[in-house]
Amino acid sequence: MPRFNPLIARLSPPPVPSVLAWAKAYDGARGPLIDLSQAVPGYPPHPEMLKWLGEAAASPAYAGYGAIEGEQVLRAAYATHVSSLYNASINARNIHITSGCNQAFISTVIAIAGAGDTVLMTNPFYFNQETTLAMLGIGVELVPCDASDGFLPDIDAIASSLKPGVRALALVTPNNPTGSVYPPALLRRIYDLCRANKTWLILDETYRDFLGEGSGAPHDLLALEGWQDGLICLYSFSKSFCIPGHRLGAITAGLAVVRQVAKVMDNLQICAPRSAQAAVARALPALDDWRASNRAEIGRRAEALRQVMSKLTGWKLQAIGAYFAYIRHPYPDISSEFVAEKLAKIAGVVCLPGDYFGEGQEGYLRFAFANADVPTILKLEERLSTFHLPGI
Amino acid sequence: MPRFNPLIARLSPPPVPSVLAWAKAYDGARGPLIDLSQAVPGYPPHPEMLKWLGEAAASPAYAGYGAIEGEQVLRAAYATHVSSLYNASINARNIHITSGCNQAFISTVIAIAGAGDTVLMTNPFYFNQETTLAMLGIGVELVPCDASDGFLPDIDAIASSLKPGVRALALVTPNNPTGSVYPPALLRRIYDLCRANKTWLILDETYRDFLGEGSGAPHDLLALEGWQDGLICLYSFSKSFCIPGHRLGAITAGLAVVRQVAKVMDNLQICAPRSAQAAVARALPALDDWRASNRAEIGRRAEALRQVMSKLTGWKLQAIGAYFAYIRHPYPDISSEFVAEKLAKIAGVVCLPGDYFGEGQEGYLRFAFANADVPTILKLEERLSTFHLPGI
Repeated sequence: MPRFNPLIARLSPPPVPSVLAWAKAYDGARGPLIDLSQAVPGYPPHPEMLKWLGEAAASPAYAGYGAIEGEQVLRAAYATHVSSLYNASINARNIHITSGCNQAFISTVIAIAGAGDTVLMTNPFYFNQETTLAMLGIGVELVPCDASDGFLPDIDAIASSLKPGVRALALVTPNNPTGSVYPPALLRRIYDLCRANKTWLILDETYRDFLGEGSGAPHDLLALEGWQDGLICLYSFSKSFCIPGHRLGAITAGLAVVRQVAKVMDNLQICAPRSAQAAVARALPALDDWRASNRAEIGRRAEALRQVMSKLTGWKLQAIGAYFAYIRHPYPDISSEFVAEKLAKIAGVVCLPGDYFGEGQEGYLRFAFANADVPTILKLEERLSTFHLPGI
Repeated sequence: MPRFNPLIARLSPPPVPSVLAWAKAYDGARGPLIDLSQAVPGYPPHPEMLKWLGEAAASPAYAGYGAIEGEQVLRAAYATHVSSLYNASINARNIHITSGCNQAFISTVIAIAGAGDTVLMTNPFYFNQETTLAMLGIGVELVPCDASDGFLPDIDAIASSLKPGVRALALVTPNNPTGSVYPPALLRRIYDLCRANKTWLILDETYRDFLGEGSGAPHDLLALEGWQDGLICLYSFSKSFCIPGHRLGAITAGLAVVRQVAKVMDNLQICAPRSAQAAVARALPALDDWRASNRAEIGRRAEALRQVMSKLTGWKLQAIGAYFAYIRHPYPDISSEFVAEKLAKIAGVVCLPGDYFGEGQEGYLRFAFANADVPTILKLEERLSTFHLPGI
């Protein structure tokens, strides 16, 4: 057989399907499965959202090819939304629609860096961002995020890692996997460091809609003069509208970036699927209240998880944020992958092991707590307190 | 501003939008615009297709994440279709669904080759395949296809280009841009050469559904023992079902290839949009007769274009095939990009210039004749015969 690209051959298989296989192996003995693995809110999309998706998909208007950068209605609606959220003046031309946020990341990265270049990320990291860079032959350097600092990236480590030629620093806030929310002042300092080094700052803000009530703008960077020359923001419509199956994300960037990304997207898939774009353009303003009520609900879920964790011994809530919690499991010498597998198969609690998110993460598990409602989260107390690794 | 990836910065902007801009500049003086540019059949999707798309998109069943490799129903339905078309035994596990055929190509190529590797293509080529390789830093070598051979690739040139280490040969049949249909015997010889050199043969067969009635299997390669170790076939649901806006394509390959492609797809966008997959799974068997009647209709359009071209002086139908015709324009010293621009703006006939498809293609225009109905094609006679480049 001819060879494969060694950069791909040596990647592990995608992690989520193997975790879902553990879940399938659970026999139900402890009660219904509690799925805290892939980030998918447990509640369904709004009925109007589904209606609009159906109407647009059934329309011949969206059957043909669309604009590479996205449907004008969605670019405009999202620009309005971003402008309001960040107290900024974002134009529709600053928006490039993609097929989900992984695609927003890869098309941004390809526009910026090639094989042999270097991109900085945090450790722990969102695994698809790391494998994306690895598969493109782009070198990755990791900035440590310590549990004792709430998993915020170390500003001195960033400063010393920003050597000439580093093409981008990629951050995820609210963070995946830790949940950590990076404060605006920290983001401003990081942005300034990146600007001084001519390094793009890429902010993946997929989970920002789940920030607590009244938390204000996640940062002030989009309101700064000249942000276009240093900042690229990524977003996903999947979580907030509960429609990951429709694959929609967005890039907010300067016109020069959008122009380069359009060349990449044309090669990747010409344009994002169109009908869902039309539906989300309607939903963005219309479902604002629904999204706010979900935000409040997810705040209650976070509170429930805090309560549960405070009652458990051996388990520690190391960090909790907008969507995820990062939990220290009680088996310091055993890898989190093994713990997560047994937790799924024996206790029916499915989560992702810290091992998947970087170096030195063997002690942690990521709980996508926002997936489960409060009564379900409260059941974790019994499930976890009675869980014992076999043979330990 | 920080730098862009020089491989992207030096790519030209995507060509189709600029051609559509020429079309917009046409004042209508010669009658309605005749759009022979992007390959989109002029007839709408089948009403049932639209209904199924709408139903699936409105269903909460497809709102969540799906399998990376695609919906099982579509993989199975397409495997059945391919098995029947090629008299082969293709399993659902040999199918990987993608978001259109450009994505089928890039995810295949990334699985096979990295920066610094070499992939062979034909000249002329489908431009997105060339820019995809260029943006990934993959070296491209071109196999000439001569007009005097009906734009079939030169088998001796392939043999001498297949040096050790060449990772893949990418062919498009029926061809884009020339329309040329590669005979099964030629494909078999090329496949044998590739196998002997441990080079993957990638066949993009996006336009195969428009082959003439009774033309049989496009090739016998999928029926050969061990095809999985040498062949990767690409396809698009866009043209045949008139749904490019829904972005669906497919890869047919061995299990080892599918496994590598899944790692790439997970990084590119996790999975193709789901609801359209469910709809196409229903349509594949159900709309077979409709697709057959479209095939016959497109045969009539080809015949109409042949008639028109035989009456024109200066213009020459150099090749015609399943979807495209490749036309020699009457201005040998003038680039086809200039001719195409004027043809759009003055005569209201929009097509793609040969320049976009490779070296030495300045004398040609690509007509996507399948886009236009017979009465519209017949109007080309007057439009072209009375067209004169200003100042010539």
